[in-house]
Amino acid sequence: MAAKQRDAAHWMGHALRLAKSGTGATYPNPCVGAVLVKKGVVVGRGRSDVTGGPHAEVRALRQAGAAARGAAMYVTLEPCSHRGRTPPCVDAIIEAGVRRVCIGVEDPAPHVGGKGIRKLRRAGLEVEVGVCGDQARSIHAHYLHHVATGRPFVTLKVASSIDGRLATASGDSKWITGAAARKSAHRLRALHHGIAVGSETVLRDNPGLDVRHVDGVDPIPVIFDSRLRVTAAKRAELKLMRAGVLVLYTARASKTAQARLARTPVEGVEVPGDAEGRVDIEAALELLGARELRSLMVEGGGKLLGSFVAADAFEELWVYRAPVILGEGRPILAGLAFDEVARAPRLRQHSTRKLGDDQLTVYARA
Amino acid sequence: MAAKQRDAAHWMGHALRLAKSGTGATYPNPCVGAVLVKKGVVVGRGRSDVTGGPHAEVRALRQAGAAARGAAMYVTLEPCSHRGRTPPCVDAIIEAGVRRVCIGVEDPAPHVGGKGIRKLRRAGLEVEVGVCGDQARSIHAHYLHHVATGRPFVTLKVASSIDGRLATASGDSKWITGAAARKSAHRLRALHHGIAVGSETVLRDNPGLDVRHVDGVDPIPVIFDSRLRVTAAKRAELKLMRAGVLVLYTARASKTAQARLARTPVEGVEVPGDAEGRVDIEAALELLGARELRSLMVEGGGKLLGSFVAADAFEELWVYRAPVILGEGRPILAGLAFDEVARAPRLRQHSTRKLGDDQLTVYARA
Repeated sequence: MAAKQRDAAHWMGHALRLAKSGTGATYPNPCVGAVLVKKGVVVGRGRSDVTGGPHAEVRALRQAGAAARGAAMYVTLEPCSHRGRTPPCVDAIIEAGVRRVCIGVEDPAPHVGGKGIRKLRRAGLEVEVGVCGDQARSIHAHYLHHVATGRPFVTLKVASSIDGRLATASGDSKWITGAAARKSAHRLRALHHGIAVGSETVLRDNPGLDVRHVDGVDPIPVIFDSRLRVTAAKRAELKLMRAGVLVLYTARASKTAQARLARTPVEGVEVPGDAEGRVDIEAALELLGARELRSLMVEGGGKLLGSFVAADAFEELWVYRAPVILGEGRPILAGLAFDEVARAPRLRQHSTRKLGDDQLTVYARA
Repeated sequence: MAAKQRDAAHWMGHALRLAKSGTGATYPNPCVGAVLVKKGVVVGRGRSDVTGGPHAEVRALRQAGAAARGAAMYVTLEPCSHRGRTPPCVDAIIEAGVRRVCIGVEDPAPHVGGKGIRKLRRAGLEVEVGVCGDQARSIHAHYLHHVATGRPFVTLKVASSIDGRLATASGDSKWITGAAARKSAHRLRALHHGIAVGSETVLRDNPGLDVRHVDGVDPIPVIFDSRLRVTAAKRAELKLMRAGVLVLYTARASKTAQARLARTPVEGVEVPGDAEGRVDIEAALELLGARELRSLMVEGGGKLLGSFVAADAFEELWVYRAPVILGEGRPILAGLAFDEVARAPRLRQHSTRKLGDDQLTVYARA
């Protein structure tokens, strides 16, 4: 029995690595990994694909062909039992004659929610749920969060000095962290469906927000710009004035600015403002969640990052910390004030590691 | 030969642990460890003592008695060859009939500087220098720095939030870090001869600057207080208004304040001011170095810490970082500004470890 469990963990490890390798690239779907094993040999493997098409389970079955009969499937997320963009996976699994299905984590989506598991069991298959459950939940954290809350999983990311600054007083921020940290940050971008920036950052740094340092799919840029200030810049100057970019503004944006926006390929959506007239973070997350953005990485600047902290609207904070002292400069998290330490948001240090000369520390909700 | 080297490293390890256990407690002397070994058995061990008296080598010889004849001595720092407060150790080593002496690091002090080693060799003893040399240099770093520069080895220490604040905007700093971090900070205090604080910290926090959470000797408090503001407080209110405390002031201190100081048990010394009238850091370090304070830990506040960074007058920065966000508040390093990232001081991350919920990261000069 212990050997069987070790085996299950081993093969699920394969499926999890498959899933991880594509996370972020399969918007709006979660990236699932599936492995078919027969007599200790992998006969088929599948991963959700960036181009859509068959689910991971069906890809693995197709690769296995006749060998799927009597095999065991290891799949990171509960197979679907409903007809969505593709036919139900559970039907394909049953038809192929798979004997046993090991599932990492149950899919809590209302149209799945254990239905797939029940259908497999009714068909006489042996089903085990929760194999490497913690790892599966971690790999599907963005998807599970979105299903549970209707909002994207929010990751705040900063490049910081020792003393918590992201730029000098004069605004210089090139380069605080080194190449290894920048590459890791690009990998983090590739894991997310969307990437948020404030208008000040767009106007000052003119970022492209791509993942050029790594393999992966560029996330969808979302500009938080209550007054549509970005439209006042010469369009050719800004890399983000392109199709596929979303800008969120409020009623503070002038009719002129809205008219200017209409002449760009950027999509604009008006959302409610908060007490200070800025884009309301909750409203923005509702909107992005409804568009099936399951994850959002917030890149900066400090004011936008601070707004997410103030709204208590984030799950993780990734700090790439360089061993440099910037002194008076722009704080990594601006616009926040707490009278007492006891009232300040306290997180939990999830992990830390060295990246070149820099240090990446990941904080999660306590 | 390899076995002999392994043996030497093994016994030197004992001597180094002895030395480390007393570092900071033997002001104004370095804390040396010595172990005498004969036929694979320890026959004597000695450590510099807080109360003065014989050096580590002599303590080890006394413990060994007749067994010292033909033994090998492992000593972290070159034995002295001059008559100081005690007779020269090398004479005692030779007289006791020690056969071989392994030394961690040569003592660069002008009155030692290889003289001890030469005298031992002339007397026919086998001498090896540089056994566990890096570790010995590290354990004696404070002493070696002081001998080389005439100034104390300066360690900056801060308790910081994720975003580089040591207190909220209203000044609350209790408690940012947890019990494990506070205990470690007390251990760090015990490793230093002196402990520096600014007048604002004294007036606001009324610190005792003791090492009550750990075994060890309290360092000598040094208050940086250009205008002698601490004398304006009711004396009974301030824990540091006691004998053994040193206050450094400048010509900005009024005659009244100086007269008030004379009525306290605190020792005051006037030092030159810097361009802004504050205690000049270089001048302060010269003074403290001349008093044989071989190490100084700077506790805060942010302005004093920032002054040491601005003067480029520190060797290490210890950051105890709590997973809390304080927002607008007091920066850990105040009064610093750099136009460009490229001109900001860049350090080297020496080590990092978890302490309870907090993280200690030690930065050293690059």
